[in-house]
Amino acid sequence: MAVMNAIILTIGDELVLGQTVDTNSAWLSRQLAAIGCNVAAHMTVSDSQADIEQAIRYAAGRCDCLLVSGGIGPTADDLTRQAMAAVMGVELEPDHGWLARLDEFFQARGRPMPAINRIQAMIPRGADLIDNPAGTASGIHAVIGACHIFILPGVPGEMQIMFERDVLPQIRARADGGVILSRTLHTFGPGESAVAEMLGDLMRRDRNPSVGTTVSGGIISVRINARCPGIAQAQAQLADTAGQCRRILCDLVFGEDQQTLPQAVADLLKQHPEARRWAPAVCTAESCTAGLLAKYLTDVAGSSSYYRQGWVTYTNQSKTSQLGVAEHTLRAHGAVSEPTVREMAIGAATRSGAPFALSISGIAGPEGGTPGKPVGTVCFGLSHPRPDGQLGTLTRTMLLVGDRDMVRDRACKMALTLLRFHLLGKPLPF
Amino acid sequence: MAVMNAIILTIGDELVLGQTVDTNSAWLSRQLAAIGCNVAAHMTVSDSQADIEQAIRYAAGRCDCLLVSGGIGPTADDLTRQAMAAVMGVELEPDHGWLARLDEFFQARGRPMPAINRIQAMIPRGADLIDNPAGTASGIHAVIGACHIFILPGVPGEMQIMFERDVLPQIRARADGGVILSRTLHTFGPGESAVAEMLGDLMRRDRNPSVGTTVSGGIISVRINARCPGIAQAQAQLADTAGQCRRILCDLVFGEDQQTLPQAVADLLKQHPEARRWAPAVCTAESCTAGLLAKYLTDVAGSSSYYRQGWVTYTNQSKTSQLGVAEHTLRAHGAVSEPTVREMAIGAATRSGAPFALSISGIAGPEGGTPGKPVGTVCFGLSHPRPDGQLGTLTRTMLLVGDRDMVRDRACKMALTLLRFHLLGKPLPF
Repeated sequence: MAVMNAIILTIGDELVLGQTVDTNSAWLSRQLAAIGCNVAAHMTVSDSQADIEQAIRYAAGRCDCLLVSGGIGPTADDLTRQAMAAVMGVELEPDHGWLARLDEFFQARGRPMPAINRIQAMIPRGADLIDNPAGTASGIHAVIGACHIFILPGVPGEMQIMFERDVLPQIRARADGGVILSRTLHTFGPGESAVAEMLGDLMRRDRNPSVGTTVSGGIISVRINARCPGIAQAQAQLADTAGQCRRILCDLVFGEDQQTLPQAVADLLKQHPEARRWAPAVCTAESCTAGLLAKYLTDVAGSSSYYRQGWVTYTNQSKTSQLGVAEHTLRAHGAVSEPTVREMAIGAATRSGAPFALSISGIAGPEGGTPGKPVGTVCFGLSHPRPDGQLGTLTRTMLLVGDRDMVRDRACKMALTLLRFHLLGKPLPF
Repeated sequence: MAVMNAIILTIGDELVLGQTVDTNSAWLSRQLAAIGCNVAAHMTVSDSQADIEQAIRYAAGRCDCLLVSGGIGPTADDLTRQAMAAVMGVELEPDHGWLARLDEFFQARGRPMPAINRIQAMIPRGADLIDNPAGTASGIHAVIGACHIFILPGVPGEMQIMFERDVLPQIRARADGGVILSRTLHTFGPGESAVAEMLGDLMRRDRNPSVGTTVSGGIISVRINARCPGIAQAQAQLADTAGQCRRILCDLVFGEDQQTLPQAVADLLKQHPEARRWAPAVCTAESCTAGLLAKYLTDVAGSSSYYRQGWVTYTNQSKTSQLGVAEHTLRAHGAVSEPTVREMAIGAATRSGAPFALSISGIAGPEGGTPGKPVGTVCFGLSHPRPDGQLGTLTRTMLLVGDRDMVRDRACKMALTLLRFHLLGKPLPF
């Protein structure tokens, strides 16, 4: 099976100066690997037109597919369009459709198009324009010899959406059917080594499909890659291995591939009878995470069907005035305590009328830790309807690892996990 | 002054597969830039010996200094030593000093040296060994033509210590003493092209110090790089150009280098007389951003000195019950309107007693847009103390670009910017 070869070229002074870490190459590589396309190399050059031209010439002679990211902004240091035209030996020409789009874009914002933005509608003669639904820089698709070249913006959000919409289908159409299919199972709670121990022999290096673990933002993901001549075979092997992993990890798996923890919780809320009857069913009361839990819950489009409202009670006074936490409780147990988060959850539930209330209070650091309650100590509360119609509560205290950002992020994921297992009707398995 | 040119080559299947983001190249680039060495390119290839050989040949012909990272571990997929020897046309030979070190290393751990580790003491004939004080993989220093090649491990900790101890002094001795110093000014509000137009001739490509713009998360940053023979001269030129940029961009610049927008706002709040007198002085009332503004304000350690509390009033009912927004206002103008955010801000200020209240209500999408209020429409409110002791308010409506995540992120940055200019005592300049 002849595998398609790709090279990824990223462009930017900030990259070769080391001021920005290039994450686009890794992202593009993952997308290409997923369709069985072999990435032979990454290259990065500065904003110098000569360097860009040299890199395009070198790479185009060595691959079937060259992905270029960066250097198509509106400013004088954006020279990828010019370099591409020079390599092709043609002029840049305006794309009138894109010029009209740019005019509309700026008109909608009540200002005329700056003259320098005009360059973003210029395309080498004979090349095709790639639509950018998220910005002003059009992309370019050109062919040199046997090599298809796709030029995309360096801004990750724009690059990714353009790759997925326009570039990926074109590459897939040219690939020869040898495939690598991947599936990823996401867990939150136990550490990477605990997950790896549970998976045991499935993680043998010579296994196909291969099973590996990666960590990102506290989420331990199990990545399964099946490399097969045909898609049906790859799908079957992938499903088999994924099934084995799921049987071992059980409810620890909250989702697959692009599914996030907030989405998993949202899906459960949309099915749960009590949550449906009293929709929107969830409210939040946060201290150290200061709104991040509410933000996560509302990351999902359509979150107003299950998220009602929240309080950020950062001061003790606001815990009392807004949520009715007793001053006595704060004095006797402290703001970071299970009695306090219990009263925060009850206060949020009764004031909002929402059946489920999540509360968080903790020490995110770097200051504020004590020997008894070190930095990373976080208390969680959940109030929920009981079968007898009364309001039930459960609380937990955990010691989370990491800096301020990490502790706040992990605390919110833990609160979502607490709610997730409650909605599943199961105790937290760790 | 002849500048030394470097290329950085990183090696690993995990890199070209996108499973690991290459951070070594950026780190090495920063070290080289600091001593005035120009990094012409980054390259990354897989663990294939043929690919490594080809990359070394290509790079060695195009630079004075090639830094290679990765592929010198003990396992079968570590082939950089073999590739280097092949390019040099020589054999690998054992370094007996390093072999003895390996024996000692394993003896100290109470086990014999595994046979596969022997390769880590093999050096191409005619090359020099680079000591690794942190691991078992020795490095290699070799010369091909005019190019000095330094091969280091891929493990960042080992690579960095070896670079600093042995490689940097050798490169510095060959460099001519030139340095590149950098400074970055951050702005939020106007787009990249607007900032570039303001900077005008300062962005000429042939200028030294050079001035370029980059975008990340809606923040437009102006990067200034001064390349000079000596550090004092570079510092002076950097300060001069930074001063010119600041005079043009004025208060649009909220910070330099590592400073974030929340930090800039926090610093202003710590100096502002009204904010100090009524500390913690800020509260928030959020709808579409659902806690993200509160999260940003509390990203800064010690934020309890200026952040008091917040409300996430996602439903209309909670806007009324928690903040006292009139039902009539919601009916007449809608939740996404300046009258509504004005009442949200006033409600938050009066209920919390905080002098400053920021409010946000908008349409983050992807659903919910109308012709009159398309996705991305966001209204901002700020209530603040007036000189006459009364409560003043100001409101703004903006159309923000991007997907749900981007709209919510930009909305929070805009709210911070609104507060920032108010604390500066100036109108929003865009």
